[in-house]
Amino acid sequence: MAKWDPSTSPAFQPPHWMQIQFADQKQEFNKRLTKTGRHSLSRSLSHSSTDSYSSAASYTDSSEDEMSPRDRQQRSSKGHQDFCIKNIKQANFGRREIEIAEQEMPALMALRKRSGGEKPLVGAKVVGCTHITAQTAVLMETLSALGAQCRWAACNIYSTQNAVAAALAEGGFSVFAWKGESEDDFWWCIDRCVSLEAWQPNMILDDGGDLTHWIFKKYPNMFKMIKGIVEESVTGVHRLYQLSKAGRLCIPAINVNDSITKQKFDNLYCCRESILDGLKRSTDVMFGGKQVVVCGYGEVGKGCSAALKAMGSVVYVTEVDPICALQACMDGFRLVKLNEVIRQVDLVITCTGNKNVVAREYLDRMKNGCIVCNMGHSNTEIDVVSLRTPELTWEKVRSQVDHVIWPDDKRIILLAEGRLLNLSCSTVPTFVLSITATTQALALIELYNAPEGRYKPDVYLLPKKMDEFVASLHLPTFDAHLTELTDEQGKYLGLSKTGPFKPNYYRY
Amino acid sequence: MAKWDPSTSPAFQPPHWMQIQFADQKQEFNKRLTKTGRHSLSRSLSHSSTDSYSSAASYTDSSEDEMSPRDRQQRSSKGHQDFCIKNIKQANFGRREIEIAEQEMPALMALRKRSGGEKPLVGAKVVGCTHITAQTAVLMETLSALGAQCRWAACNIYSTQNAVAAALAEGGFSVFAWKGESEDDFWWCIDRCVSLEAWQPNMILDDGGDLTHWIFKKYPNMFKMIKGIVEESVTGVHRLYQLSKAGRLCIPAINVNDSITKQKFDNLYCCRESILDGLKRSTDVMFGGKQVVVCGYGEVGKGCSAALKAMGSVVYVTEVDPICALQACMDGFRLVKLNEVIRQVDLVITCTGNKNVVAREYLDRMKNGCIVCNMGHSNTEIDVVSLRTPELTWEKVRSQVDHVIWPDDKRIILLAEGRLLNLSCSTVPTFVLSITATTQALALIELYNAPEGRYKPDVYLLPKKMDEFVASLHLPTFDAHLTELTDEQGKYLGLSKTGPFKPNYYRY
Amino acid sequence: MAKWDPSTSPAFQPPHWMQIQFADQKQEFNKRLTKTGRHSLSRSLSHSSTDSYSSAASYTDSSEDEMSPRDRQQRSSKGHQDFCIKNIKQANFGRREIEIAEQEMPALMALRKRSGGEKPLVGAKVVGCTHITAQTAVLMETLSALGAQCRWAACNIYSTQNAVAAALAEGGFSVFAWKGESEDDFWWCIDRCVSLEAWQPNMILDDGGDLTHWIFKKYPNMFKMIKGIVEESVTGVHRLYQLSKAGRLCIPAINVNDSITKQKFDNLYCCRESILDGLKRSTDVMFGGKQVVVCGYGEVGKGCSAALKAMGSVVYVTEVDPICALQACMDGFRLVKLNEVIRQVDLVITCTGNKNVVAREYLDRMKNGCIVCNMGHSNTEIDVVSLRTPELTWEKVRSQVDHVIWPDDKRIILLAEGRLLNLSCSTVPTFVLSITATTQALALIELYNAPEGRYKPDVYLLPKKMDEFVASLHLPTFDAHLTELTDEQGKYLGLSKTGPFKPNYYRY
Amino acid sequence: MAKWDPSTSPAFQPPHWMQIQFADQKQEFNKRLTKTGRHSLSRSLSHSSTDSYSSAASYTDSSEDEMSPRDRQQRSSKGHQDFCIKNIKQANFGRREIEIAEQEMPALMALRKRSGGEKPLVGAKVVGCTHITAQTAVLMETLSALGAQCRWAACNIYSTQNAVAAALAEGGFSVFAWKGESEDDFWWCIDRCVSLEAWQPNMILDDGGDLTHWIFKKYPNMFKMIKGIVEESVTGVHRLYQLSKAGRLCIPAINVNDSITKQKFDNLYCCRESILDGLKRSTDVMFGGKQVVVCGYGEVGKGCSAALKAMGSVVYVTEVDPICALQACMDGFRLVKLNEVIRQVDLVITCTGNKNVVAREYLDRMKNGCIVCNMGHSNTEIDVVSLRTPELTWEKVRSQVDHVIWPDDKRIILLAEGRLLNLSCSTVPTFVLSITATTQALALIELYNAPEGRYKPDVYLLPKKMDEFVASLHLPTFDAHLTELTDEQGKYLGLSKTGPFKPNYYRY
Repeated sequence: MAKWDPSTSPAFQPPHWMQIQFADQKQEFNKRLTKTGRHSLSRSLSHSSTDSYSSAASYTDSSEDEMSPRDRQQRSSKGHQDFCIKNIKQANFGRREIEIAEQEMPALMALRKRSGGEKPLVGAKVVGCTHITAQTAVLMETLSALGAQCRWAACNIYSTQNAVAAALAEGGFSVFAWKGESEDDFWWCIDRCVSLEAWQPNMILDDGGDLTHWIFKKYPNMFKMIKGIVEESVTGVHRLYQLSKAGRLCIPAINVNDSITKQKFDNLYCCRESILDGLKRSTDVMFGGKQVVVCGYGEVGKGCSAALKAMGSVVYVTEVDPICALQACMDGFRLVKLNEVIRQVDLVITCTGNKNVVAREYLDRMKNGCIVCNMGHSNTEIDVVSLRTPELTWEKVRSQVDHVIWPDDKRIILLAEGRLLNLSCSTVPTFVLSITATTQALALIELYNAPEGRYKPDVYLLPKKMDEFVASLHLPTFDAHLTELTDEQGKYLGLSKTGPFKPNYYRY
Repeated sequence: MAKWDPSTSPAFQPPHWMQIQFADQKQEFNKRLTKTGRHSLSRSLSHSSTDSYSSAASYTDSSEDEMSPRDRQQRSSKGHQDFCIKNIKQANFGRREIEIAEQEMPALMALRKRSGGEKPLVGAKVVGCTHITAQTAVLMETLSALGAQCRWAACNIYSTQNAVAAALAEGGFSVFAWKGESEDDFWWCIDRCVSLEAWQPNMILDDGGDLTHWIFKKYPNMFKMIKGIVEESVTGVHRLYQLSKAGRLCIPAINVNDSITKQKFDNLYCCRESILDGLKRSTDVMFGGKQVVVCGYGEVGKGCSAALKAMGSVVYVTEVDPICALQACMDGFRLVKLNEVIRQVDLVITCTGNKNVVAREYLDRMKNGCIVCNMGHSNTEIDVVSLRTPELTWEKVRSQVDHVIWPDDKRIILLAEGRLLNLSCSTVPTFVLSITATTQALALIELYNAPEGRYKPDVYLLPKKMDEFVASLHLPTFDAHLTELTDEQGKYLGLSKTGPFKPNYYRY
Repeated sequence: MAKWDPSTSPAFQPPHWMQIQFADQKQEFNKRLTKTGRHSLSRSLSHSSTDSYSSAASYTDSSEDEMSPRDRQQRSSKGHQDFCIKNIKQANFGRREIEIAEQEMPALMALRKRSGGEKPLVGAKVVGCTHITAQTAVLMETLSALGAQCRWAACNIYSTQNAVAAALAEGGFSVFAWKGESEDDFWWCIDRCVSLEAWQPNMILDDGGDLTHWIFKKYPNMFKMIKGIVEESVTGVHRLYQLSKAGRLCIPAINVNDSITKQKFDNLYCCRESILDGLKRSTDVMFGGKQVVVCGYGEVGKGCSAALKAMGSVVYVTEVDPICALQACMDGFRLVKLNEVIRQVDLVITCTGNKNVVAREYLDRMKNGCIVCNMGHSNTEIDVVSLRTPELTWEKVRSQVDHVIWPDDKRIILLAEGRLLNLSCSTVPTFVLSITATTQALALIELYNAPEGRYKPDVYLLPKKMDEFVASLHLPTFDAHLTELTDEQGKYLGLSKTGPFKPNYYRY
Repeated sequence: MAKWDPSTSPAFQPPHWMQIQFADQKQEFNKRLTKTGRHSLSRSLSHSSTDSYSSAASYTDSSEDEMSPRDRQQRSSKGHQDFCIKNIKQANFGRREIEIAEQEMPALMALRKRSGGEKPLVGAKVVGCTHITAQTAVLMETLSALGAQCRWAACNIYSTQNAVAAALAEGGFSVFAWKGESEDDFWWCIDRCVSLEAWQPNMILDDGGDLTHWIFKKYPNMFKMIKGIVEESVTGVHRLYQLSKAGRLCIPAINVNDSITKQKFDNLYCCRESILDGLKRSTDVMFGGKQVVVCGYGEVGKGCSAALKAMGSVVYVTEVDPICALQACMDGFRLVKLNEVIRQVDLVITCTGNKNVVAREYLDRMKNGCIVCNMGHSNTEIDVVSLRTPELTWEKVRSQVDHVIWPDDKRIILLAEGRLLNLSCSTVPTFVLSITATTQALALIELYNAPEGRYKPDVYLLPKKMDEFVASLHLPTFDAHLTELTDEQGKYLGLSKTGPFKPNYYRY
């Protein structure tokens, strides 16, 4: 099998199957109808599955339930034993979940198909540490189809879908994860992915940096042998940059978090919908006529502000960055300091990435019934800690909704205890997850196949051409038809007909 | 006590407390902060209460549960016995629900307060038949505070909040309703409201027309003695117009369904939000880039189309009325026939009030994964019956979500089995219910106090001035400040400073 | 020729050619491409024509120019003499203008064609008093094609397009109008339309009520013989209602001003565009980030507010009517009193129909550079008179733009001296004029053909079915495809398949 | 006087007067009212001045008019002779224009004031080549106030405002420019700015690269002595990058064209308004219901699409870049190839920067009356040349509007002969020009004061901190209040409280 050998990043030339294709777009589209049309089926099923999981779980005998997965012997129907999960019996159910997710992730399925005979990941030994969900399973099985060997742990002790883990194990994957791990379990699972005789991983796919950190600290020699790291999260990327700055990052890494497509979908497009969804599900608030202050006018703030304005709210914006501030003005929002409007608003939404943006002094001045929530990252934007004082009463009125009651009976409605509203009170559409997963897969392929010297020990952004490729793989979902440059036009613009189409500093 | 004697409708002069007030708006606003600020508290509580009700219910002994309320002796703590509900023990819980609803219904509370010493409903004997919820309880207690005696039944066998019914009974109301009545129970309850010795009701407040019909048929003499009917529903209004047309309506009725304020809130403003909410909660669909066809461009269709357009969907509209069709064009929607787009859309939403708008032939041509739902009224817009055929498989994937599967594996996602999405899969904001309840209260007051001859035996629209009054009572929620005409301006326009401000044919 | 005999208004049955047609829609559409595609050609030409008129005028010998048209003998190339216009030599130029307007008024052209052999206006003797423009000429020639005889005067001393008047005269019409009439000329022209031996007009088409008034006062006997009046303007309608109220209106009249389609286009849709256009052409102001207060939230205010919000302005609204006020809230605008924001806004726009809305006290408090304009009707909304005081300096900076300068050097920018911005500083799209003209033609046909007794001496709104017909005639412009009710659906809804589709109180 | 010595770009520390200020924001704002309030005055005046210029020009004796400025002796009232303009007598009129522009360019005025005693441009000898307008004059006088000596030529043979040039000359500037230069004049003027005994320029401010090219070619030794180039245009920047790539750029240059603030205003915000303005002024087209295709979805395409969608048009988008394409989808536009919609659209707008996007084959297929215009850059996007064939007739219907007529009578309406609509048919708001001029001034200051070694011979983007500073100087116009980071927050984010606030790859 021919080794995949793309050229260096600026002149990066993807194999034919990776090029944006025009000719067969029409046929693709017809086929698509059968496939991607199901995008919404799986969401509903995913949900029902989550629900039914509890019931599914109920047929596991209780002895199993009480015993830690680590203490049980595990074996798939085909005799595979190199895994540790909750309950292999749920495999069929998990498999159905994965099949449904496949229908909503046409880009990964296209990757499998487009590669044709080529297996760009043959020889790749990938250790992964991500949320273990049906969508991740589609990613893992795609990597496997492209030639990789995978070992996988969970990046979060609660987020594992046990049935999916079971299906993966049944399918022969070495997966170490279950819902409700202890912290000790967490690191034990990670270690099981890494420390195996006769297994030298050469690629890392990480979400949060814990896996990377574990290998870096515990297995420095193994670390040096890694060909590349693909990191998905803000936190993990931050840790990589620090490592790099300190001169201790000895291998190349790709920061997929800041890929253009992912950023726009995770932040602007996804938040535009999830702010409404999260608020409705948790509070049933009517948006029309409400006064809202959105703190921060980055992509998340832009999405939240636009959505609420469209629903008839009166939106104020706060900003520290004068460029974003000027954008808010031109988009029709009054730019204020928080104290100018805090007494009058019905809703406060933080989207800053900063800490103590809604400090206790502001909480004190809010009017009765004001709703406070966080769409930024981390849980520090609202100073929730400052509300844990004796004079204030907390009343949990439903899951993710607390009333904090002042001595004069004023109540504020705090959502998700200041954690991310969109993760706590709404769902992330599979379409968004598909974009991320596709980006991860391509970054792995790129790093693994990059010729010597293309990447130095540093943190790289995703090559723009790959970003464009991810986008192009998702266009058929919208029956969207790309225009192709003519030869003459390409020459005029000095562009290849297959991209990249913009300079690196282009801002979209 | 002075009898309330408003003048005839065109020249209708509300008592001082009913006039739109300007002078004290500022103080009102300050007080409002304490009251209306809680608008969203109660929604969340209502929900949690609905949930907790089930658990609340669980402490009722099972013997009670099995016995029909009709077979049990009922008695409040104060010895009141003239009621029939599920369980008087839930009264405290229901009282708390009512108190929370009060905070979100400032207009009714203002009515209580504004009337001051006057009790415009002294002598009124109101029989009511509506959903029995916390919001209705606030209405009933307002009527009572204004002097009325009330007897009440439920207009729907499922919609009664038992705890609220208990609180009303404990408070001395004669309420006959519980969740899960049989049809026989339903009519028995209505009859108990009506046929009581020494009780000649003189006002009817109806929602659906069943109570009106029952009295009309069973107690024709009693019917003739009624001073007026206030009807809330499309169906009930339709029945009244038919009665009137047939020359058999011997008493005046007010159609509150078509009041301007109610229509705009029930249809345009409420649906603008609930279409998004209902779809997200049931399917988690991402709106951006989706192709949607909205059938019908009345107020509901306008709200749905605007909301989805704002969220980045591509919206097509179908219409039969050329005026609404032209509006759709000017609002930026392609006006199509359903068959032109049915193969390509991701979502089909009906808002027509018509039947078989989405006939089987269209369902057959939809693409895989298409979501179909109804925002109009009744459950006839989608020809769901035609889908109950042997070649199609139904799969319930969660509450209110069915997959209907064609032999070739195509699935469509049918929501709420074609019933109203907004009622089935989202919630109605209390603010909207407040507008309806206030309108009902004012219509009762108007009919009861109208001097001889102002209303003939006919169906009337709500006098515009009252409509304006309802609107003005809800403005403080938005900290909205109305401008008052100067004397000179009033004269110039030929308008009273207290309204009505528009001719009857004005369209808003 | 069969007399056109439509039935009474509620049951009004238009002849076959007037029914909304579905079958041949597709062919219509293909043909349309050739015709309606030119919609924008004529606008531009109209403009250039206005411009070129001045030059066109320049080739008239100056002696003619100085002599009043009344003093000159006039004669068309075919010997027709019964007219009085500026200059018959401009006929060719005017004819071209009319031909272009025809292409933009497909509805009138369709009326001509649809009537086929039928000439519903045979025997009608119409006196008209409207603006004399190319669009009016298309209307007049349509009336003529349908069988009517016409005599016409101008309703405004400045608005006559002389070349168009020339083309009409050359075509045999008796038209009495020129640009720049004196007041005496104005009434003389009207009288010449009316007082002709052997001419008893039987229909009046009026815009402003001056013609109606003239006949009513001067020729009371002639007035009684009129079959019907069609009145287009707010003022004229007002005068008719007053006459009717006083019991002196002895013939039926149709108020076309309040037809639904006309209202929406004249107010909402037209103003949504002309507010932006008028402001840009007169001031080049950038809308993004500007603070704007819109006084009045009727259709005009709704259009202005929506447009400016969409362009990134921050919009405040003032209202006296609580229902419109509540709409403003739900549409996302802060409802304020003018004094709350007058110091901070960059733009003040009046849309109230009221007087002295922007009184001197508000003008005094505006900030330097504030732009003030009127989109309502009449020129009384801004108290311009109060600015004619010695301490203020007026500086005309361009046509329609005055700076009013306070002693402290503060300037406000007053547009069109407080007259209508949309008429003074932007243009009215022919599409909007087409809707009005079509409505007028249909109202004339209806009144003329109505059987005895359908219309009493009163002021009527346009029958809804005709309103729908006007709308349907304009749908092809947007390639819009109306859905037809099935028989079953019509029965279910109790509607005729050809309309009317809504109850009279429906608000659109 | 202390030399201004800012530190290197990443750690660039502006002098105190250049830091974003919070403390005195309130006072600033009050003062602002007097100044910036006039923003719209000057626009209107500018226009009237343009108009009145012709009349102003008319009092010049014709002999002067016919003689080339180069052949006349020129002298200001104070004896200054080192300039060459049209007519010094217009100086007073030009001065008034400049004064008005000053009021609309508060950022430059703030720069003058903030520098206080410091004169960061003392010793700077700036040669400039830009449009010579009132706004440029404000820039030149700002540079002069900050210590620079200036010599200036026009970058366009038509764009010079003669009165402004006169005022500059009268004020002592060496300006060489007039409206209607020949090409020979053009280069002569440039040369006069450069080649002067005892004048070695050390800074270049260029717009288009002609000045830079002239010095580079003609005076290579002088070129090497230049400290830095500030280039404003796409073309000029392109030429600089080519020079740099070829290794022949021996001095540092700043590309101000790609500064974030300028890009957003020149493209997104400005085009959002000018597309509507340009279309209305040239064609009076009604936007509601129109079908439009926008070619290209960069910033310009985004602005055009959003504006037309907001006005009720149905908008289709074409794109070659899959990322921008995906954005169009998520923003609610159908992504099509041009041939899919070309037969049905009413409007075609190009925003691609590409050539032959609207090729003859598309023009052939457009429907009658279709409007075609270009909002991108250059005049190559529409293949206008292909329309200059014998079978097509061109008819100029007004300035900037041509009808191109096919043999079958089909007309398309071509605007500005395919040149930029926004420059040809609408105006650029002074606010946008203010942003550009401020950016140019700061770039000059930075390059001139940069310590040895901060900038190498290369093309730089504007340091982000300066971009932020430009934005902050323009916030007061919107009464916008920036929030300041607390020390704790700055530390948490790792940011200085004075910025820069974002990583370089941030996309806004």
